[in-house]
Amino acid sequence: MSRFVDAHLGRLTPYVPGEQPQGRTFVKLNTNESPYPPAPGVAAALNRERIEAMRLYADPNCTKLRQAAADYHGLSPDQVLAVNGSDEALYFAFLAYASNRNVYYPDVTYGFYKVYASLLGAKGIAVPLNNDYEIDWKDYFGKDGMIVFANPNAPTGHYLTHADIKRIVMSNPDQVVLVDEAYIDYGGASVIPLIKQFDNLLVVQTFSKSRALAGLRLGFAFAQKALIDDLTRIRDAINPYSVNGLAQTAGIKSFEDRRYFGECVSAIVKTRARTTQALEAMGVTVLPSLTNFLMMAVPNMPGEKVYKGLFERGVLVRYFDAPRTHAYVRVTIGSDPEMDAFLDALKEVIA
Amino acid sequence: MSRFVDAHLGRLTPYVPGEQPQGRTFVKLNTNESPYPPAPGVAAALNRERIEAMRLYADPNCTKLRQAAADYHGLSPDQVLAVNGSDEALYFAFLAYASNRNVYYPDVTYGFYKVYASLLGAKGIAVPLNNDYEIDWKDYFGKDGMIVFANPNAPTGHYLTHADIKRIVMSNPDQVVLVDEAYIDYGGASVIPLIKQFDNLLVVQTFSKSRALAGLRLGFAFAQKALIDDLTRIRDAINPYSVNGLAQTAGIKSFEDRRYFGECVSAIVKTRARTTQALEAMGVTVLPSLTNFLMMAVPNMPGEKVYKGLFERGVLVRYFDAPRTHAYVRVTIGSDPEMDAFLDALKEVIA
Repeated sequence: MSRFVDAHLGRLTPYVPGEQPQGRTFVKLNTNESPYPPAPGVAAALNRERIEAMRLYADPNCTKLRQAAADYHGLSPDQVLAVNGSDEALYFAFLAYASNRNVYYPDVTYGFYKVYASLLGAKGIAVPLNNDYEIDWKDYFGKDGMIVFANPNAPTGHYLTHADIKRIVMSNPDQVVLVDEAYIDYGGASVIPLIKQFDNLLVVQTFSKSRALAGLRLGFAFAQKALIDDLTRIRDAINPYSVNGLAQTAGIKSFEDRRYFGECVSAIVKTRARTTQALEAMGVTVLPSLTNFLMMAVPNMPGEKVYKGLFERGVLVRYFDAPRTHAYVRVTIGSDPEMDAFLDALKEVIA
Repeated sequence: MSRFVDAHLGRLTPYVPGEQPQGRTFVKLNTNESPYPPAPGVAAALNRERIEAMRLYADPNCTKLRQAAADYHGLSPDQVLAVNGSDEALYFAFLAYASNRNVYYPDVTYGFYKVYASLLGAKGIAVPLNNDYEIDWKDYFGKDGMIVFANPNAPTGHYLTHADIKRIVMSNPDQVVLVDEAYIDYGGASVIPLIKQFDNLLVVQTFSKSRALAGLRLGFAFAQKALIDDLTRIRDAINPYSVNGLAQTAGIKSFEDRRYFGECVSAIVKTRARTTQALEAMGVTVLPSLTNFLMMAVPNMPGEKVYKGLFERGVLVRYFDAPRTHAYVRVTIGSDPEMDAFLDALKEVIA
């Protein structure tokens, strides 16, 4: 870093996002995007008139979008914050509730939690998953700092029940419990309804996966008004207009089309079952998943080798270079033809 | 704020953006937007196919967009960072170079500098403008912290020459000098060419004003590679995908159409001259401006009263409730018909 920069930042290890290949065409199964386009109403709404209206600032409070989200989830708009991708909500939450304190998260989870802790001078404490790569609620009993985990967890795919999450929330009444539901739509049930009961529960969702709007940037935070007010205040001290106007329109249109959303999710769930079956028939270990990805290990072949073998065959998956994930790669559930191409390539790699 | 939040944040005063009226129709001259739409190529490029491609993450490094910006300004891409609106670049710069240190800015300037200082534990030091509401370079000689100012300054409109900015940059070789060029296109000359010479000069620009893309969110930082690397590293530790894919495409298309850009800027400059003349003919005091707004005072009428009188007549301008700006309102240069409506309303208010 430059000679001008704050020394603390010089020690920062940024998050490394999955590759976004420019140029070469891959079967892209590495960053858990949707193989299906956003709801048809999205492209229809983003017409010339709407695009030209971008000469004006969009509503910084995302009033209509937050109303749509509130209606969808049975909340009031003051329990909703819209953000420029869910990473922004995670950052605001770490800034509000973890700066210079302890923060607890699983040892195998979304890599950004550790980065935020480091950036904000928090002490990040990695709590090991059990031997089945599951979060055990007992490991989060009565902590002295914010707790954050993804549910279902990434990259493992494991889903924690409402009963277990309640135990964590109730045993930490003076700490914020942040549940990152990036992958909740593929078979899990959101804990959003629990926010009415618990003032320390903060739920974050993204429109980058099941809503097929990764490139347009949209995410949400849901909680009681007091927590949403905290995050809004921080947003207004950093970048009040962070959510662009086309994302606001797209979000509303996506919420409106419940049928299309259901069809896309069902298709992924069906393809996931078929892919899991095919992998297991090949002798591959697959962790149970309620997400749009599978964490899988080929016996006696390191994950890195599987990743490279697939890469050479034009299939991009994700490998996490860390002690507990060395044996695995994570593969996104794409369309059926994409998964066929992946399975064919994997057969070659294994052979 | 909630009982969970960091105490420091409880004392935070967020930035108050200009009103974005929902519902009632105003002649909107309060947040310095363009009265003209973005370049025609923008809406043409954001077609159905491009919108549906938003199911995928956009290039987090904005490779093509940064190349377009570099070509436009005669730089290399590693001297360019694209951001989700220029506020994001300002935040990253404050985080990198002002956290827990001193930072100097004019007493009358963009309100966000003070907010960032407060958020980041910096000691913000407001340096008074001179009696003509101008930045005097001598007041920034040999400081012990980052220096930041807008050029032309907002909301005063005053433009500092390259010679004066060079004096500030050269007398502070160990401090970053951040020049916020949000309004540079309306008659000023950018100091971007000076970054080759000075490793401590950081220039920020926005596509929200002259480029008519406020709602889509796009801004840039320009500096030598070392500073851009600092800011990129911070971006990657907060929100690597912060610039949405449609803004990336729109930015490229906007750079391509130099003729349309020139026409829009010329129209604003012409309307500004005409409006200034009309105001002065009415006995109104107008600060000299090289921007798309005018800072004006009606003799013997407080700015707040002018603001309210215009508001009641359906014209929205900006009033800044601070000691040195009490007499003034700031009015954006809109289209000619908009300025006629404003002048008519103002005549009524004065009468």
